[in-house]
Amino acid sequence: MKAITAVIKPHKLEDVRAALETFGVAGMTVTEASGYGRQKGHTEVYRGAEYEVDLVPKVRLEVVVEDGDATEVVDVIVKAAQTGKIGDGKVWVVPVETIVRVRTGEVDGDAL
Amino acid sequence: MKAITAVIKPHKLEDVRAALETFGVAGMTVTEASGYGRQKGHTEVYRGAEYEVDLVPKVRLEVVVEDGDATEVVDVIVKAAQTGKIGDGKVWVVPVETIVRVRTGEVDGDAL
Amino acid sequence: MKAITAVIKPHKLEDVRAALETFGVAGMTVTEASGYGRQKGHTEVYRGAEYEVDLVPKVRLEVVVEDGDATEVVDVIVKAAQTGKIGDGKVWVVPVETIVRVRTGEVDGDAL
Ligand SMILES: Nc1ncnc2c1ncn2[C@@H]1O[C@H](COP(=O)(O)OP(=O)(O)OP(=O)(O)O)[C@@H](O)[C@H]1O
Ligand SMILES: Nc1ncnc2c1ncn2[C@@H]1O[C@H](COP(=O)(O)OP(=O)(O)OP(=O)(O)O)[C@@H](O)[C@H]1O
Ligand SMILES: Nc1ncnc2c1ncn2[C@@H]1O[C@H](COP(=O)(O)OP(=O)(O)OP(=O)(O)O)[C@@H](O)[C@H]1O
Ligand SMILES: [Mg+2]
Ligand SMILES: [Mg+2]
Ligand SMILES: [Mg+2]
Repeated sequence: MKAITAVIKPHKLEDVRAALETFGVAGMTVTEASGYGRQKGHTEVYRGAEYEVDLVPKVRLEVVVEDGDATEVVDVIVKAAQTGKIGDGKVWVVPVETIVRVRTGEVDGDAL
Repeated sequence: MKAITAVIKPHKLEDVRAALETFGVAGMTVTEASGYGRQKGHTEVYRGAEYEVDLVPKVRLEVVVEDGDATEVVDVIVKAAQTGKIGDGKVWVVPVETIVRVRTGEVDGDAL
Repeated sequence: MKAITAVIKPHKLEDVRAALETFGVAGMTVTEASGYGRQKGHTEVYRGAEYEVDLVPKVRLEVVVEDGDATEVVDVIVKAAQTGKIGDGKVWVVPVETIVRVRTGEVDGDAL
């Protein structure tokens, strides 16, 4: 399995969630975050407000998927999160050794 | 070392924390999160309220442990977090290459 | 690439951010968190208030960097976050298989 972490613009969360559901991803975890990217000091607009400070509100998503789905799921997230403007975010992939469904104790492929 | 991430029901946090402490886990990090699992669209109950929306409040835990403790710690979390109802959560394991205790600069086994 | 996760005292965030920027780190993601370390039950002071409870407010940082920068970036974070008092935090390193810049679709070295 792979854990895909995506840090995206908050207003793109619903598009990304819908795209993941259409793809068939079984679950995801969402956290509020903030961050800065390469354009430090540049302004970003969030909900009509300009942020000149370094830390801009973002949403952090985590999705654990089967190895064979990882490349496609990254692509789905990137396409759905893209606005073409700076600050669109990053998506990265980390290896997962095992995953368990808490309710049943099922593991790995059966847990997703 | 391994990093164990657990996404659980918020009302199970105290049970999980106590079970980890009994096991002897040295520390943990907690973040508020929300998520959806396989039963998209089904309702889940949280603090007496039914959630029909997709994103249900969850708690995200991170625990870094020695390699030899990982399987048992996953088991401790799963047992303590289990209610038997849908939405009980997921627990997954990722490899950690190094860990440092900030106060002392100690690394790896000495940092846990 | 490597993903460096740091859990630090909230009042050290600005020092760490500035040290990372001086080093030339291109971006970071920040989440509010809470946690406990080895001195369970000991009190920690946060914004003038003593916490006797187990969960103390912390800030969680994530920084994805090139392999060759990881050791130095960990060191930068540890030095900037250190107060010498208990509860200064932990920094750990996880392997990253790929990273994408959402705006452009650039990957890996070009995405950082
Ligand atoms: N190296 C990194 N490590 C961890 N998080 C990062 C990193 N770079 C960016 N982020 C997170 O992603 C968010 C968006 O980054 P951003 O899209 O601005 O990256 P960028 O490289 O500056 O791209 P762009 O040129 O399109 O703005 C940041 O606010 C931060 O939360
Ligand atoms: N593949 C996944 N990747 C990341 N987080 C996930 C994933 N699946 C579930 N989660 C997180 O775990 C939480 C609980 O998931 P849940 O227990 O509902 O999984 P499930 O497979 O639907 O199991 P159940 O049948 O018991 O409901 C979700 O709200 C989400 O935050
Ligand atoms: N094993 C761990 N896994 C995940 N997070 C941890 C772990 N240990 C500590 N943390 C996080 O780091 C924070 C700070 O930990 P802390 O610095 O108190 O560690 P410590 O080992 O007790 O060191 P010290 O002796 O300096 O207090 C905790 O509140 C928690 O959020
Ligand atoms: Mg940017
Ligand atoms: Mg479910
Ligand atoms: Mg401590």
